[in-house]
Amino acid sequence: MERIHDVAVQGVGTSDYGWFRNRRVESLAWEAVAEAVKDAGVAVEDIDAMIVGSVFGPPGIATRVQRGLGLPGIPLWTVEAACASGTAAYHRAVEAVGSGQYETVLVLGIEQMSTLFSGAIVPEATDPEGAAGLPLPGLYALQAQRYAAEHGVTPEQLAAIAVKNKANGTDNPRAHLREQPPSLQEVLESRMIVEPLTLLQCCPTTDGAGAAVVGRHRGSGTRDVLVRSSAYVSGQLWDQRSEHVWGFDPVVRAAEAAFAEAGVGISDIDVLEVHDAFTIGEVIALEALGLAPLGKGAELAPSGHTARDGAQPVNPSGGLLSRGHPLGATGTAQLAEIVWQLRGEAGARQVRRHRLGVVETMGGGAAGMDGNNCVVSVLEANR
Amino acid sequence: MERIHDVAVQGVGTSDYGWFRNRRVESLAWEAVAEAVKDAGVAVEDIDAMIVGSVFGPPGIATRVQRGLGLPGIPLWTVEAACASGTAAYHRAVEAVGSGQYETVLVLGIEQMSTLFSGAIVPEATDPEGAAGLPLPGLYALQAQRYAAEHGVTPEQLAAIAVKNKANGTDNPRAHLREQPPSLQEVLESRMIVEPLTLLQCCPTTDGAGAAVVGRHRGSGTRDVLVRSSAYVSGQLWDQRSEHVWGFDPVVRAAEAAFAEAGVGISDIDVLEVHDAFTIGEVIALEALGLAPLGKGAELAPSGHTARDGAQPVNPSGGLLSRGHPLGATGTAQLAEIVWQLRGEAGARQVRRHRLGVVETMGGGAAGMDGNNCVVSVLEANR
Repeated sequence: MERIHDVAVQGVGTSDYGWFRNRRVESLAWEAVAEAVKDAGVAVEDIDAMIVGSVFGPPGIATRVQRGLGLPGIPLWTVEAACASGTAAYHRAVEAVGSGQYETVLVLGIEQMSTLFSGAIVPEATDPEGAAGLPLPGLYALQAQRYAAEHGVTPEQLAAIAVKNKANGTDNPRAHLREQPPSLQEVLESRMIVEPLTLLQCCPTTDGAGAAVVGRHRGSGTRDVLVRSSAYVSGQLWDQRSEHVWGFDPVVRAAEAAFAEAGVGISDIDVLEVHDAFTIGEVIALEALGLAPLGKGAELAPSGHTARDGAQPVNPSGGLLSRGHPLGATGTAQLAEIVWQLRGEAGARQVRRHRLGVVETMGGGAAGMDGNNCVVSVLEANR
Repeated sequence: MERIHDVAVQGVGTSDYGWFRNRRVESLAWEAVAEAVKDAGVAVEDIDAMIVGSVFGPPGIATRVQRGLGLPGIPLWTVEAACASGTAAYHRAVEAVGSGQYETVLVLGIEQMSTLFSGAIVPEATDPEGAAGLPLPGLYALQAQRYAAEHGVTPEQLAAIAVKNKANGTDNPRAHLREQPPSLQEVLESRMIVEPLTLLQCCPTTDGAGAAVVGRHRGSGTRDVLVRSSAYVSGQLWDQRSEHVWGFDPVVRAAEAAFAEAGVGISDIDVLEVHDAFTIGEVIALEALGLAPLGKGAELAPSGHTARDGAQPVNPSGGLLSRGHPLGATGTAQLAEIVWQLRGEAGARQVRRHRLGVVETMGGGAAGMDGNNCVVSVLEANR
């Protein structure tokens, strides 16, 4: 595998996030792409290829988006990697630019959940988890139960993650849920979905799109954000005899690869967007990234370490819990937030120190029992 | 884009093709992969990555297949390029091996249509063609109508393609439709689907899988089949003011790139598998590949040129018309046939001369109006 040199995110954009049943899926894409292309300061004609990350497509989504955009006849690729599809598309773009295959790649993550699911995602009946009646909240709840048995975690520790991220989301004008942020008590007293996860600890199903222009780094003085590394891992099945809970190992593998390639450690990272599909997800991700020792990740939110004004803010965008989780678009939304943060353009959400940022997205579950797609990328502000 | 050097198809395999409502999608994959891995003579542990081509997945299909196979935790990629998804996955594998990203890549094309569609594929309502009530047989019928208006084509010329391919399919024990091959009269008198395409001129919806192991060429004396070139084009929208019918231009672009890279011309090619989803499709594909001048492609089947014992046999496997069209698996089935033919292992279907072969797959239509995904690959027998 070639190492990445001089690859940058030149521009990012997103749609609003929410429940847009009556919008065409292409129009969501258009919003994100138009912003990303303008942000990058490139001409549409400069784009050499488009890589689309989406779980439920629909099939032909890349063509439909291209038709709506009036892009010329560039190669289109569509990749699916469960909830990590958007970041997997970004990773492919980084590889393609890094290896010289393409100069400038448009990345699009997109999902219109509202037209696919009437509120609930029901796993396909032929799938083992579907047959077992185990949708994703159940899977994450099992993760939380096992974590609680091994390390101990209080309801208040988990709820504090929702309080933090939903407060951040209040300052994100594009977030799906941006009402008055709930108190700890309100999170704890919201309807129980699957023990121990209450309603306000679960991400909503959301429509949205995110886009990025990935190309060669255009030098200092530009608004380019450097890609210091990007690692994609997949394919590792979770073994229930593992000493770690479901979803931990793939993040460790991706994080180790990403930090090694970037030549930095977790203590160097100023700001992170991680996969908080459910509150327990943030705990596991942060331990896997090394931000806390095993069993100590649940202390990070209550202690203020990961607050927006803390030492290492996590999910300043509001995360999946507040922005929502339009599967294929989630990774590109995380990427956009980190790019805005590293440039100092995050407005009311801006974190203090912003030289190095991390995006972490995990996919898998409903079809894998394993969280087996994970992308971790380290990005650096231009100087 | 790096040129391809020393890349080979080391082994291929397929499932049976048919209507397998009660089989798990993974079991179809297993059949194809087990055969391909054995055929390649590699150990499962030698596989560095798996790239899956599928249109309708389901999401997580790569993980599910991997779990069923007991493959180690290798990177998984899932790509969607409409009906060309299988060959697009193959193309990505060729790129990945050619660039040194991976040594040995398992390609899988898979689709279980029977559990998705109860006989008919209805385009999604939000899609422009869906809204227009234009499913694929209608699109191909318009292609045929326009072709007839521009160049003239008789019902007998089109029907001759079905007669040829269905006769070939009779000798393919894995083909979906392998009953007594129909006569010209029977093709013409079968139920009209969309003027001028009768039932026996339409491919069936089919379940199936195909697999290939792509790696470095292991030298003469092995059963490796060399990849002389592979070209993927996508993204070109059809303009109805074009002087060519829908679906022609992308094949031309892919063919020109593939022949240029291979350094050969169409007259050098001994055997072809092309995308005959409907009889007219074979006419358009063969003209776009240069096998006949514009407007003369419909003469190839009646003249015997493309018969199994003709000068340049086309679709000796029976093609999509006989083998069936399990979207993502079609390209890998075509690839398997060409590999068997070039090795001289095609049994009753074996063509006489078999040094150079071509695979051509076209995707798009229901979501693109443009046949905008096309892969053309030139392969060469080992010596």
